Amino acid sequence: MDFNQKFAIGIDIGGTNTAFGIVDSTGNIVFRNRLSTRDYITIDSFISAIEESVKPYIELTGIDHLTGIGIGAPNGNLQTGVIEYAPNLPWEDNLPMGNLFSKKFNKPCRITNDANAAAIGEMTYGAAKGLKDFMVITLGTGVGSGIISNGNLLDGFDGYAGELGHTIVIPEGRKHWGTNVCGCLEAYASATGIVITANEFLNCNESTPSLLQSYAPNNITAQLIFECACKGDKIAIEIFQYTGKILGVALANFALFSSPEAIIFFGGLTKAKDFWMNTAKEYMDKNLPPNFRNKTKLIVSNLDEADAAILGAASLVMMK
Amino acid sequence: MDFNQKFAIGIDIGGTNTAFGIVDSTGNIVFRNRLSTRDYITIDSFISAIEESVKPYIELTGIDHLTGIGIGAPNGNLQTGVIEYAPNLPWEDNLPMGNLFSKKFNKPCRITNDANAAAIGEMTYGAAKGLKDFMVITLGTGVGSGIISNGNLLDGFDGYAGELGHTIVIPEGRKHWGTNVCGCLEAYASATGIVITANEFLNCNESTPSLLQSYAPNNITAQLIFECACKGDKIAIEIFQYTGKILGVALANFALFSSPEAIIFFGGLTKAKDFWMNTAKEYMDKNLPPNFRNKTKLIVSNLDEADAAILGAASLVMMK
Repeated sequence: MDFNQKFAIGIDIGGTNTAFGIVDSTGNIVFRNRLSTRDYITIDSFISAIEESVKPYIELTGIDHLTGIGIGAPNGNLQTGVIEYAPNLPWEDNLPMGNLFSKKFNKPCRITNDANAAAIGEMTYGAAKGLKDFMVITLGTGVGSGIISNGNLLDGFDGYAGELGHTIVIPEGRKHWGTNVCGCLEAYASATGIVITANEFLNCNESTPSLLQSYAPNNITAQLIFECACKGDKIAIEIFQYTGKILGVALANFALFSSPEAIIFFGGLTKAKDFWMNTAKEYMDKNLPPNFRNKTKLIVSNLDEADAAILGAASLVMMK
Repeated sequence: MDFNQKFAIGIDIGGTNTAFGIVDSTGNIVFRNRLSTRDYITIDSFISAIEESVKPYIELTGIDHLTGIGIGAPNGNLQTGVIEYAPNLPWEDNLPMGNLFSKKFNKPCRITNDANAAAIGEMTYGAAKGLKDFMVITLGTGVGSGIISNGNLLDGFDGYAGELGHTIVIPEGRKHWGTNVCGCLEAYASATGIVITANEFLNCNESTPSLLQSYAPNNITAQLIFECACKGDKIAIEIFQYTGKILGVALANFALFSSPEAIIFFGGLTKAKDFWMNTAKEYMDKNLPPNFRNKTKLIVSNLDEADAAILGAASLVMMK
């Protein structure tokens, strides 16, 4: 541990768990911890718990070496530092999270949503080192995105740009469980969406044998479908291919928007990439004009998933 | 005419006509002219013709007051100054248009595509004055777009960002006449697309009386459909409403991408805005998550169409 280095605190706030750590300027997480978000009824108790945890390390390295606190959180707004609306967090809406952390540590605090933090993390420490125009697509429970344009986070006039999981791929298609909008990417290409696809496929293909048929609909998970696909299960493989087709159309649209050098995938579904990525690439090219085909690279993040969120959050203040 | 002012040459190169003019720093076109693009077999003769035309005015104002030349042209690349591929222009591909003009006038030359030039023109002289995050959608023979993010043109890693007319709105939908891709916005929301819609509607609704039925399919134009809609023709009005629905889905996707403060419409179809704009707004909101609804303003450009292309091109160098 080099005590002359600058450090940042990176915090990844999720509805269930909050992971945080101290990151040095070369991207090593020198200390890490996690707590259960829902255990903290007040935001003050939550912030104090994090402060208590990192305190010994900050005292060791010296507060002068702390550049600031970076936070990735659902609906975190980089422009205002506020979490305006967060149905999955135990605290009130319009929470000035950035200010509260900044006051507690007497250091700058920057906050954004988790996918934007991942994009900045990839640029600082990951697959996007040296790239100025790229985007990160997170394929997890939901579908998130962070867009980097000319080296800067694309955040729009109000801090909310880059919600590509909610773009429409099939007009009047499957209804999204949260927004009630029909046919958005997240309704198909998230872990939640894939499970819905699985149940639809199983209902329509009762005569085709599948390992998935021995599970109750409620017990089917994206992980289980992946395991069945690995065993060669035809229906499980088709579920991922169907997902890849829909994702491919969306990727074509994303490429036409910002002409990124690369699209970097991140999150749980990247484990199953062998089952959907070629199809996604094929349908992406099929839906692009000739001069856009074979241009944008599709890459899977090489950052450890548990670390990436902390690194991404820390890089919000490390970049400055 | 103020001889102490800075001036720029703005050139709008189209497949049929090239319009150009001298623009002062307050956005007045103090001289304008046009020539027939196809009359010039060599690019040198084309550039010389423009130089001859503007020469007397440059001599009057003094070459020192000329800031440069801005060009809007199909597939013009801001990063390279090259027109890489221009099937509608009489000259060879990979034409270093920027360099050629720059050498002729011994002044900087910047080139981009017409929709990007329109976006910069709107920011400099039009409805987007003071806005930093917005986009221009041109609804003409085709559908073009120019995206401004944080005050800068979004041009991607290779200069080709913002081709929103080619984004997919109906997967596996209508085949585009140029790219052969199915279901892109331009196949529906351009003047060309609307004429196709009209012929489809007339074939499917033979029993519904329409003024359009008295024309041969080849004689139906977007202008004619507009005129029939103004006379209260039910089918003509339905054609624009159908177009508005599809455009609305696309606008929702654009808003989710860059969260623009405004989307500014430009081009021939804006004349018919009373027939499609409310529907577009309704379907845009219907396809957006709640926190994105009623946020992005939909505005029709107030720049004179003939002038806007020249102003937009000139502002490429006037901004610098």
